[in-house]
Amino acid sequence: MLRQIDPNDHEKLREYLDSRSEDISTEVILKVTEILHAVKKEKDAAIRRYTKQFDGIDLEDYRVREEEINEAAAQADPKFVESMRQAKANIEYFHNAQKQHGYLLEKAKGIYLGQRVLPLDSVGIYVPGGRAQYPSSVLMNAIPARIAGVKRIVMITPPSKMGTLHPNIAAAAKLAGVTEIYKVGGAQGIAALAYGTETIAKVDKIVGPGNIFVAAAKKLVYGKVDIDMIAGPSEILVIADADANPAYVAADLLSQAEHDPMASAILVTTSSKLLENVNKELVKQTAVLPKREIVEQSLKNYGTAICCASLSACVEIANAIAPEHLELMVKQPMQLLHEVRHAGSVFLGYYTCESVGDYYGGTNHVLPTSGTARFSSALGVDSFIKKSSYLQYSEEAIQAYGDNIICMAQQEDLDAHANAVKVRLKK
Amino acid sequence: MLRQIDPNDHEKLREYLDSRSEDISTEVILKVTEILHAVKKEKDAAIRRYTKQFDGIDLEDYRVREEEINEAAAQADPKFVESMRQAKANIEYFHNAQKQHGYLLEKAKGIYLGQRVLPLDSVGIYVPGGRAQYPSSVLMNAIPARIAGVKRIVMITPPSKMGTLHPNIAAAAKLAGVTEIYKVGGAQGIAALAYGTETIAKVDKIVGPGNIFVAAAKKLVYGKVDIDMIAGPSEILVIADADANPAYVAADLLSQAEHDPMASAILVTTSSKLLENVNKELVKQTAVLPKREIVEQSLKNYGTAICCASLSACVEIANAIAPEHLELMVKQPMQLLHEVRHAGSVFLGYYTCESVGDYYGGTNHVLPTSGTARFSSALGVDSFIKKSSYLQYSEEAIQAYGDNIICMAQQEDLDAHANAVKVRLKK
Repeated sequence: MLRQIDPNDHEKLREYLDSRSEDISTEVILKVTEILHAVKKEKDAAIRRYTKQFDGIDLEDYRVREEEINEAAAQADPKFVESMRQAKANIEYFHNAQKQHGYLLEKAKGIYLGQRVLPLDSVGIYVPGGRAQYPSSVLMNAIPARIAGVKRIVMITPPSKMGTLHPNIAAAAKLAGVTEIYKVGGAQGIAALAYGTETIAKVDKIVGPGNIFVAAAKKLVYGKVDIDMIAGPSEILVIADADANPAYVAADLLSQAEHDPMASAILVTTSSKLLENVNKELVKQTAVLPKREIVEQSLKNYGTAICCASLSACVEIANAIAPEHLELMVKQPMQLLHEVRHAGSVFLGYYTCESVGDYYGGTNHVLPTSGTARFSSALGVDSFIKKSSYLQYSEEAIQAYGDNIICMAQQEDLDAHANAVKVRLKK
Repeated sequence: MLRQIDPNDHEKLREYLDSRSEDISTEVILKVTEILHAVKKEKDAAIRRYTKQFDGIDLEDYRVREEEINEAAAQADPKFVESMRQAKANIEYFHNAQKQHGYLLEKAKGIYLGQRVLPLDSVGIYVPGGRAQYPSSVLMNAIPARIAGVKRIVMITPPSKMGTLHPNIAAAAKLAGVTEIYKVGGAQGIAALAYGTETIAKVDKIVGPGNIFVAAAKKLVYGKVDIDMIAGPSEILVIADADANPAYVAADLLSQAEHDPMASAILVTTSSKLLENVNKELVKQTAVLPKREIVEQSLKNYGTAICCASLSACVEIANAIAPEHLELMVKQPMQLLHEVRHAGSVFLGYYTCESVGDYYGGTNHVLPTSGTARFSSALGVDSFIKKSSYLQYSEEAIQAYGDNIICMAQQEDLDAHANAVKVRLKK
């Protein structure tokens, strides 16, 4: 049963959702700082010690050799590998269109301005271990990096208690074009990527989800290397009209709610009749879900419904929330899309449930959470490139325009800046 | 006199340069946290109190009315305003080419994938006050935001002791298309932009340079709003061949050194003869500079020269340093540019001193410092947009491919994700 709130309360709702984001505790920061320092100083010796301590296994060498990758990958379910292969093709199809090119402008005789688009040299992808394993994340992180032109795509993941690599993760890494794999997790893994060890060369950027220790470590090494966003609790907002199928709406809300008790599922609709039927479906569908307990907690905590007078009013709520996932379960979704200003990824029509995008459709599932869709974007090819500008003035050009530069530098009291032009001017 | 080091010591040099970046002290963090909390809670009342305390003036209203902007701007030197007008045209010319467009792909019947490019709703630009004033920064921050399509471009700057706005800053803001100006600075100004007050509506992103309190405040509000990079000490690396004019080389190194004692100027050359002459020029030119003391400190601390056997070897040093500014004072600079992998902005040929780009040429002067050019880019139109993806599967498409999604969701133990597809499949 979704808690119903007034459409005018949407600001309070955003604040309520924001309250989910926890600060990282000082205790965690201190512990992680200690780990980072140890790895920076002792390198592989520290990695071995922490892996023994946290993952319960003593690994003499945590580099995964090609043979081991192939052996693990061969154990993955062939039907699953085939599904991943199709997903990979779709992800490539969507992300290939994100490739950017540099430009060179000749403004006037002797004046050139340009911008180059360059791939990062190397990227590290963190892949969580433990009971949960998310091969889809490997595809979503590694494929855009490869399309961007990144040469070294390094994956790290905690070893199992037996010291092995999960077959699905191995299969995904092979498909996605990961070039190196290491069995190391936690803050020590992030430290290895950021500072380098005898075994791992340091990388330029670290991406991928992880637990609170991983998140803290990423925050702390940020600046030394780049990182992707630190993901907050996941959220979906479904806009549904009177014709939407309540069973579909309920199923999609539940797919978000099963992530964790902090995940939020919000329905915004023009039809109170639909809301009534969705509530019935939620009860019915929840009853048979394996993750029933998590779902019930999540709905109780954050499950919300808002009835609005018009679809445009529904979109205004979505814009105020800036949800990670937005479904437009309406008759004319493309039309409504033009009113959406803030959303990580949008799923159009009655048949595009969020899971299509989570796994298969080709858009990226690494998305801005906690309202950050107001100012940030999905992971993509952009995340693995940088732009470098250039400028050329000929001797004639500096003679012609140098006075302006001297004037501006002097107004800012930067005489050596002005002087760099002056020495080049013919008296 | 530049300290000469061996080409093989370039890694040590990068580490040495990195050691300049100071961590923000706990004391500053605590003070700034207090200010942020106060502004969040008391809004304008806190702003008034802190402005009185830190800027020494009691402002009843810190919004700057149009009349005041016009009056201040009218006092700027007309020649300077004309130089800014030309600079503005050049900045627009370069940044217009950065505009990006969305795309929509029809992958197969009933399957659409797309990406929209959307401007941020609002941006706040911090403009430092005090004795130093940098109108060029106003242009460099505001113009790309306007080209991106940002509707609200808010500028904040500390009031002078008389409560006035600097004429040059007012003139730059008018030219650049700033839409709102407030006389508030420091951490309290950043808090106003991030949380909003009765006077200022909150913004989505905060850009612009500031002192340590401003930098700490930006770091602390990051996540709630977006920020640009926290700039570290500035750096230039000049690659010069035997034909480079030593007076030009020296002048360009000095233009960097005058910024502050932490700024670094590095010469990498194939000619020891040139290095000798540059050292002579440095002495000569430094002697007459108003900022002589700063320049001497900076050169003593970080001024460095490296002699290499070839221009390609020089570029490899540059790639290892990833300098903010890179000058290629060589005969064939465009050719050498292709070997550059990591540099914020590159200045080509004997006549393009860095100041051309700092003020006038059109490329942006807000650049990645401290080696972050390995993974980040200049400020630009990209900094003020976000991308939102969308996906549509028809009923037929979900029937055709749904099985794959179910399979992948089940492998990840996310049954509600699988169920969202199942409910849509015809049995």
